Amino acid sequence: MTLEDFCAAERDRQLAWLTEYVQIPSISSSPEHVTEVRRCAEWSARQMERIGLAHVQVLETGGHPVVYADWLQAAGAPTAVVYGHYDVQPVDPLDLWHSPPFEPAVRGGDLYGRGSVDDKGQVLMHWAAIEALFQTYGRLPMNVKFLLEGEEEIGSPNLDAFIASHLDLLRAEVAVISDTAMYGHDMPSLCYGLRGLAYLQVDVSGPNSDLHSGSFGGAVVNPANALAWILAQLKSEDGVVNVPGFYDAVRPLSIEERVELGKLPFDEAQYRAELGVDALAGEAGYSVLERLWARPTLDVNGLWSGFQGPGAKTIIPSEAHAKISCRLVPDQEPEHIAELISKHIAAIAPKGVRVSVEQLHGGRPSITTIDHPATRAARRALELAFQKEVVFMREGGSIPVVATFDELLRIPTVLLGVGLPDEHAHAPNERLNLENFYRGVLAAAYLWQELSQIG
Amino acid sequence: MTLEDFCAAERDRQLAWLTEYVQIPSISSSPEHVTEVRRCAEWSARQMERIGLAHVQVLETGGHPVVYADWLQAAGAPTAVVYGHYDVQPVDPLDLWHSPPFEPAVRGGDLYGRGSVDDKGQVLMHWAAIEALFQTYGRLPMNVKFLLEGEEEIGSPNLDAFIASHLDLLRAEVAVISDTAMYGHDMPSLCYGLRGLAYLQVDVSGPNSDLHSGSFGGAVVNPANALAWILAQLKSEDGVVNVPGFYDAVRPLSIEERVELGKLPFDEAQYRAELGVDALAGEAGYSVLERLWARPTLDVNGLWSGFQGPGAKTIIPSEAHAKISCRLVPDQEPEHIAELISKHIAAIAPKGVRVSVEQLHGGRPSITTIDHPATRAARRALELAFQKEVVFMREGGSIPVVATFDELLRIPTVLLGVGLPDEHAHAPNERLNLENFYRGVLAAAYLWQELSQIG
Repeated sequence: MTLEDFCAAERDRQLAWLTEYVQIPSISSSPEHVTEVRRCAEWSARQMERIGLAHVQVLETGGHPVVYADWLQAAGAPTAVVYGHYDVQPVDPLDLWHSPPFEPAVRGGDLYGRGSVDDKGQVLMHWAAIEALFQTYGRLPMNVKFLLEGEEEIGSPNLDAFIASHLDLLRAEVAVISDTAMYGHDMPSLCYGLRGLAYLQVDVSGPNSDLHSGSFGGAVVNPANALAWILAQLKSEDGVVNVPGFYDAVRPLSIEERVELGKLPFDEAQYRAELGVDALAGEAGYSVLERLWARPTLDVNGLWSGFQGPGAKTIIPSEAHAKISCRLVPDQEPEHIAELISKHIAAIAPKGVRVSVEQLHGGRPSITTIDHPATRAARRALELAFQKEVVFMREGGSIPVVATFDELLRIPTVLLGVGLPDEHAHAPNERLNLENFYRGVLAAAYLWQELSQIG
Repeated sequence: MTLEDFCAAERDRQLAWLTEYVQIPSISSSPEHVTEVRRCAEWSARQMERIGLAHVQVLETGGHPVVYADWLQAAGAPTAVVYGHYDVQPVDPLDLWHSPPFEPAVRGGDLYGRGSVDDKGQVLMHWAAIEALFQTYGRLPMNVKFLLEGEEEIGSPNLDAFIASHLDLLRAEVAVISDTAMYGHDMPSLCYGLRGLAYLQVDVSGPNSDLHSGSFGGAVVNPANALAWILAQLKSEDGVVNVPGFYDAVRPLSIEERVELGKLPFDEAQYRAELGVDALAGEAGYSVLERLWARPTLDVNGLWSGFQGPGAKTIIPSEAHAKISCRLVPDQEPEHIAELISKHIAAIAPKGVRVSVEQLHGGRPSITTIDHPATRAARRALELAFQKEVVFMREGGSIPVVATFDELLRIPTVLLGVGLPDEHAHAPNERLNLENFYRGVLAAAYLWQELSQIG
């Protein structure tokens, strides 16, 4: 029996299997669901044992456990680590669901239920692929390790420490994550780059208390005016960041990338209409997708100072504050960018106020280029499974674990996601297109065959 | 008996009289003190009857009452309206008072108690002066009307309407207010100018909800960045307001004014130290006092947008807001300035956001020039009483009733205040220097003699 025949014959069982997974209400943010989250970890461990993986362990983290399993019998072949998560988002508001979130239901070719696409469907897709490989070939073409966490939806508070303390266990040549969406319907996609982040707080303080704006206005530097002035200097009206050195490490888009990204359909009028804005922003010379994915930004995330209530209060505020953050692209380093911004703000800060800048958070950008062997392998796997040319995309946001794999394991990550942008991850009526799921099982099986050649 | 002998002989009785006034806890902001406030109004009315004023009335306003009294027997002589208030500030924090706020106590030549300087002492100073004139001359040299309100400390919510509906009752040629402080100890002062106010709210809205700064950053105009940019354009770093037409109506300081204001001692190092700032702001070519009193400003009073909590939240906020206000100087008009700012903001607002500007509040600046006959009369009265040359000053803030007198009665106001800057009005341990009080009684008596000549 071929792999393809096995997978075609097993579709109903795979759906029943996924249904059982989605039924477990593993809401990681809810204290009332702690035992269900653990039950889900143990259930996940049993599945991996059953399909033939070894060294299955439920490992404690201080929070919800990590589930580990592997198969390491492909001597001489490379090793991949598959990251996924078995926890799910909360379900509020419950009354907007058309069927109960933990009673999976199939409608119109989609499986509805919390966690169906994010991320249980895409984890189980890998299990089903490995089961199919074992059932048809008796072995895997390469070594595979599974790392499933139960805290992704609460920000993975224990994951970095877990990886740092299990480096030998997790050692691999490549990471695979299936937790993203394709660019659109019927468009098998490879997301090959993510932006990083440098997040700062700017605190401006002036007089030692709020002052009467009549008695003092005109002689005292107003911290709120000063903050606005500082923020305005950081970025030009045309979207260019005015911090010296900011762009020095930015890796330019290659011609191949621009060609690939240029193939993606993008309806700017519809995009504007959905956001409710009459014009978009950004740097000249870059398409909207390039601005979103491959160019760094500087955005104010929050502002506060002085009087915010209704009516008029005539004060010169003693303090003014802003949260600002930069989305970073390869090869910008968060700490370096934070330092450049801090220095620049110190250099331009008006006299008469004290300005301090603190870095609150950071994450490195990542890229596994289009011509990287792992990307090329994933492309072939997807194209075989979907019988369609793959599109290449990037993401404007971050996936912190990708940066962690880069930093701690020094390995590239392949993002092989089969979700769709409108499948309501994190919202009511989350769903997973079953055709994409079944094709994803095939793609995940082909992936090991293709990746085994890259060593 | 001369006026001076009478006043000298009556000092103890005047102190006892003031003590009785301060004992009434007429806290206008406190619902528990409503009857005390009314008792204070009625007590004030009885005092004015006793000293010989006519037409004494306690008049309803919808809030705390107004007390009116007059003496109109000086046929052919001008008429003044004396404005004061019989209500007082709250007393919290009570534990910081060295003696109970409503049990007046004399220490070191000062009378301590809530309302001693603000404004009961300065109201009673006028009563004592009129009593002295009646007792020694049997009449007043001109016509005088008293308008005492009970809501000054809560923003005079009913006063403008009261004045507007009693224009005939209040008709006069000049207004006198004794509710301000002298520039410093032993410096009889005339405050001849007040700044006005135009207060605006700026609302910037962009995308129809907060957006993920990773997914959307770089292509969407950020309302918080846009607001900062707008605010930064409104004023140069050197303190000059960049709104076209803003300075057109500004009346330049006369040489005489600059000479007079230049006589005032001002210790900039001490001023900076008290405020806790290492540098002051403001327009080149103007002294600090000139910037504070005679130049218009533009200050941000409040700012809010997006995420203000601890830590990092990576959003592009949907909205950003600011309160801004300008202190105005003669002859700027609040509505005109608000319109100039609104138009300028509309002209410079970035594409991709919607910006609206609303005027929340306004008040006209006022000036009764140094060479105005009423100012000259007050100067002579003060110099006679204090045996010292008067200094001229202005105030950076507003006294709304002065603008109302200007607008509704079309009369100039003389600010004859005998408080001191460190007498803790609105704070614990409010006090009144008794020497200034006794000299103030004389000054208030001389004032009617001097002002009677200006008609």
